[in-house]
Formats: sequence, C-alpha cells, structure tokens
Amino acid sequence: MEAYLDNSATTMVFDSVKDIMVRTMTTDFGNPSSLHTKGMEAERYVKTAREAVARQLKAEEKEIVFTSGGTEANNMALIGAALANRRRGNHVITTGIEHASVLSPVRFLEEQGFRVTYLPVDERGVVRMDALEEALDEETILVSVMYVNNEIGSVQPVAEIARRVHEKNPEILFHVDAIQAFGKYVIRPKREGIDLLSVSGHKIHGPKGSGFLYIRDRAKVRPLILGGGQQKGMRSGTENVPGIAGLGEAVTEIYRNHEERTEALYRRKERFAEGLSRMEDVRINGPRGREGAPHIVSASFAGIRAEVMLHALEDAGVYVSSGSACSSQHNKSYSATLTGIGLAKELLDCTVRFSFSIFTTEEEIDYALEVLGRLVPALRKYRRN
Amino acid sequence: MEAYLDNSATTMVFDSVKDIMVRTMTTDFGNPSSLHTKGMEAERYVKTAREAVARQLKAEEKEIVFTSGGTEANNMALIGAALANRRRGNHVITTGIEHASVLSPVRFLEEQGFRVTYLPVDERGVVRMDALEEALDEETILVSVMYVNNEIGSVQPVAEIARRVHEKNPEILFHVDAIQAFGKYVIRPKREGIDLLSVSGHKIHGPKGSGFLYIRDRAKVRPLILGGGQQKGMRSGTENVPGIAGLGEAVTEIYRNHEERTEALYRRKERFAEGLSRMEDVRINGPRGREGAPHIVSASFAGIRAEVMLHALEDAGVYVSSGSACSSQHNKSYSATLTGIGLAKELLDCTVRFSFSIFTTEEEIDYALEVLGRLVPALRKYRRN
Repeated sequence: MEAYLDNSATTMVFDSVKDIMVRTMTTDFGNPSSLHTKGMEAERYVKTAREAVARQLKAEEKEIVFTSGGTEANNMALIGAALANRRRGNHVITTGIEHASVLSPVRFLEEQGFRVTYLPVDERGVVRMDALEEALDEETILVSVMYVNNEIGSVQPVAEIARRVHEKNPEILFHVDAIQAFGKYVIRPKREGIDLLSVSGHKIHGPKGSGFLYIRDRAKVRPLILGGGQQKGMRSGTENVPGIAGLGEAVTEIYRNHEERTEALYRRKERFAEGLSRMEDVRINGPRGREGAPHIVSASFAGIRAEVMLHALEDAGVYVSSGSACSSQHNKSYSATLTGIGLAKELLDCTVRFSFSIFTTEEEIDYALEVLGRLVPALRKYRRN
Repeated sequence: MEAYLDNSATTMVFDSVKDIMVRTMTTDFGNPSSLHTKGMEAERYVKTAREAVARQLKAEEKEIVFTSGGTEANNMALIGAALANRRRGNHVITTGIEHASVLSPVRFLEEQGFRVTYLPVDERGVVRMDALEEALDEETILVSVMYVNNEIGSVQPVAEIARRVHEKNPEILFHVDAIQAFGKYVIRPKREGIDLLSVSGHKIHGPKGSGFLYIRDRAKVRPLILGGGQQKGMRSGTENVPGIAGLGEAVTEIYRNHEERTEALYRRKERFAEGLSRMEDVRINGPRGREGAPHIVSASFAGIRAEVMLHALEDAGVYVSSGSACSSQHNKSYSATLTGIGLAKELLDCTVRFSFSIFTTEEEIDYALEVLGRLVPALRKYRRN
C-alpha cells in the first residue's frame, strides 16, 4: 500500500486538468496574440480561466494576472508593489514565518533601502496583533502575511489584520500569500480587505508552472516581466495557455462540494492527530483541530531525526516532508516557523510534515498510523543501541 | 484544406512532448524538492531535460537555467546581467529590430540610468558592423542581438559580432535572443562566443510556459525570481517538471535529422517565395533564400491591408500573422523591423508573415499560394471599387 501525504509539496493534477491541457497543446494550440481564429480560440481558454478565478474570488477579471506559479506571484506582489509605491514610504511589514518566496524578495527590498519589520508569532504560529499595531507607522506601504503556514498549518486572521492595517492607513497594500490556503478556504479579497493575493496551481491539483496574483483594482504594482504587453502589460510573454486553462479548471474543481470535502479533510486530519497522540513522545505542532488548516499536521518525534523517519516511512510507501519541501534541498537551515513557535531545539530536527488532499483516504491515514506505530519504537530502539 | 503558416507565433507540441507531460502530471507528479523517491523521480526528469539541452548546446548542465519561457529568459539576461555588472560600466548595446521582450527590459535599464545604443540594420535587416565598432566603448558591459529576426527572418552574424565585442573587451557579456533561431540552426555558444542565450519551448513544438537561459560559466547574472533557491538559486519556484521535461523532449526531437529537415524547410520556403514573386506588386522583405532563416517569409502586398489579408486568408483556412504575433494585440505601432530595413511607409501596413515548421507540407504551401493567387487580385479590385 502507498500513502502520499506530501500534498503541501505538490499534488497530482485533476483528470480534467490533464484533459484540457492536452487539448490546448494539440488541437487548440494557438497563440492568444494571433489575430486569426486559432489565436482567438486560445484567447478564449485564457478568458474562461480568468472568469473562473474571478468568479471564485468574487473579483473582477481585470484584477487577475496569471503568473508562472506562486513564487513569481509573491515576487511580483512584494517587489512590484514596493517599488511602485516607494514615493509614499519605505517601510514593509511581514512575519517571521513566511515562505522563502516572500522572504527572499523582502530581503531584496532591504538591499534596495527599504526598512522591514518581521512580526513575531505566538506558540500556535499566529501573528501577534500588538506587534502589528506597534510596527505600523507613517512610512508603511506594504504588509505581507501568509494565510496558512506551509509547515504547521497555522491560520492567520487575515481579515482582522487587514482591518488594523487599513485603519492605520487605507493606502497601505495588504498582501496575502494564500498558496497553502486557496482551495481550503473560501477567500474573497474584497470582503476580507486583501489588496494582493498569491495563488499557486500545483497545490490545488492544477499544473506546475501556473499561478496567479490578484491585484485589487487601482492598487499600484509594477510588472516584473516586461515585453510584448500581454495581460494588459502586467505580465508579458506568450500566455501559457495549457497552464492557465488547467489552472482555471483546477480552481473550479477544487471548490466543488467545498464544505463536505473540508469536513472530510478535517475528519481525516483529526483521525491522524488522535492516532499520533496515542504514541509516546510525539508532539503535534501548531494549532489543533479546526483552528488550524484542514490538510497539515506537523509532528515532532523526540529522538528520531526527520530524515531517518522520512526514509523509513518511504520504505513503507508513506511519502512525507521534513519541514517544507518547497525550498531547494540544498538550502538548509533551521525552520524559522518551528523556531518562531518556540519548538525545543532538540525537536527542530525531528519534525515531519504530513499533508493531505481531497483524495487522501481513511485507509491511507490508517496505514500511515500503522506504519508509524511500528517505526517509532523501532527507530528509537535502534538509536539507543 | 487548412494551412497553419503561423509557426513563428507558436507551434503544436510533438506527440512525445505531450506524452511526457501527461506522465509527469499524473503518475510521476512529485516535487523535485521532496526528499523521497517521488521527489527524486521528478528531479530526474529535470536532470534529463537539462542534459538534453546541455548536450545540444555542447554546454555544461550547470550553465542552463529553466525559465517560464523566452520572455523571462530575455528579461533575466538583460536585467540580470546589467544589474550584476553595473560596477564595470553602464553602457548597453542592442539593435533597432529586437523583440519587445528585449526592448522593454532595455528601456527599463534606461530608466535605471543605463546608457543604451540601438544599432541600425541594413536593408536585409543585418546589423551594421561599423555601427557596432563605433558603439563599443570602455563603459560597455552588455551587447544583445537577436539571432533570427521574428518578422523577416534575417540572420545576424553572431559569431562575427561576438568576435568584435570580445576583441574590444572579453568581459563584455554577449547575449543572443535565439528564440526564432534555436531548432533551425545548430548553436554552440562556446564556439560562437555567446555568453547568454535565450530559448523558448513553444517555438520548437515544446510546451508554452517553458524556456531556458544559457549562462556561460562564471558570467555574472542576478536572478530575477527569488525564493526557495531552486536551480542553484538562479530561478526559484517549484520546477515546472512537465514543462521542463516537455522542453527537453522537444530539444531532442527538433534536432533529429536536422540537416534533412532544414533542407526541406528551405525548399518549401523557396517554393513559396517563387510563387509569391510571380504575383503582381508583391514585395518579399528581408534576406532571400539561404541567407535568411528557413522558416519565415515576410511579404508586402501593395494596396491590401494586412488585417484584411489575414482575415481573407483565414476564411480559406490559411493562418498567418500581420507583423509579429508575439506581442499583445493591444500594443500596436509600426514595426521597428520593417521601418528599420527601410520599407516604404505605404507597405508597412500591408505586410504579412508566413512561417513554417517541419510539419508544413508542400500541399499546404501550394494551397496557400493558390488561395493568394485568387485573393490578391480580388482584394485589390475590391479596394478600387
């Protein structure tokens, strides 16, 4: 048996995503910029995807810019917004537990002379509101907070953060990295006060190399990639029609029966967490139950190094991550999220992330628990000898 | 009957490209950064593609950075190289007939305080060497020239340009936009003195949303997209495994029986050009025969507006471009290439690009000629009435 529990790293595409991609690579393969019917046909796929995204966000089509993925969306949001609004101030606020695709652009902005505040989180991984209030000042132009943390599944009160940010100054742009949240939560940027929102396709059973940035109408953002003026000049380059069409399809699919599916995800997550809590010396990190995201369980197995655990699980057909799989393997240091929530130093290296998708079955959960039930004592015993 | 003669806008993917993409979206869908076998398997697809590209260029694997397409590759080459080498000088040289994905980054560099020289071309669309010699100075850090022009198929003497550039100063980086050339010419960057080379997947029957930038070992280029440190930090973001695998496959496929196929392409191009030259008041732009690229014929039909021609051809199932289809439809102005070669003003609006691929048949060529033979007099008659 196999259990793929690494869905926060990447997911298998929906069948319908694959189908529409094959169609737009073979029969309907035109360039949307071509003026003939084959171009218009390709353009229609892009438009249909844009409508699907806009409908889901209750946004306008012109507010959606398709990108090559979540990382590009985050780069564009951070660098594009900061540089476009530099005249209004040079202060940027983010948190200490962001993904590298936010942190690295933020560090680039620091090199460019921007002042950056990194907000601390509490032991559940939730941003401290007092720290936010303290950080906001006359110079603040941009606040960037991730919706769901990719390592421990903590959920930020984005609407509450938006309220506080815009109370201070309605012109401050509020960016939300929703790469782990989209598809799991119903997100309506306008209702929640979000100005910029990043989403990745391959986390929601859509294509790798696809994603989008929502940019609230009239928010000023500079394009990152320049050229032929596609997407109203906001993202040049021949549109990746198969990627965009596949993304549109995934957005529609992932929200089908959303409540039921979320309920089912939570039930499996709880089943898994309960199983883990019956094991000796296993610590579950981040928020419990419904307070956290429905698809991520972070657990520290005292005395068992994550890499050892990962490979032992893999031998049994259970696929998981040590920390976050979304940065390169060669880029290792202690997780800022795990240190941020105050995890004991000796557990930092012993932490594994289990992440589920709507396709994860109860059988897979039970199988993973069964394997862990065998491995945990065995690996500890081995260590002691 | 149909004739798709818009292959410089985009191409249909090879069957084998589609197959490997389906495989990496469904069964082998892992994230290359995951440490388990599903991650390693995904990583292997990326490595295989990198090997295929490196083999074709006779380059090293570490010199290849996969991007989301040709536009991103050109942006990275121009902006990334200029900013990384600013300390050595602030002068950039390019030509007056570049694609928007080079011109727009160059204009961005001008805004950033770089000085830019735009080299003129002769009537065939070839860069004037005397102008190059005159432009090169102590401050020059980057020269960017396209290999094959996308509108008229003119071919630059890149090895000759490289020699002159590096004779002036071996540290000057020489970038070649090979988006219309790769797959048509055997390109060996080291042999030809090219430091940076941009390629797009969807022009060679590979996936849209894929491309690469060759960066000569030790050439300094700043990454454009920051984050998890993938591709040795040069291009962050989860690798688009299906796009990369598809690109690798396309690179291998497009060079199969290269000489034969090129010969066949030229024969069809010549057949088409001969047919055109028998029509009244039709001007073929750019270099003739083997002097130009094997897949592009630009023709001006006096008195017939390109858009009218394009739609009339389309009604007969012949798909072509007016000028270049690679910029957004909403971004119109006179073609710098056509004005650059000195095309009469009244013909600028009457110019159509026919572009072929290895799949273009003699029957399609003959059909297009037959349709044109009917349309040209008919449309002119219509105009006079």
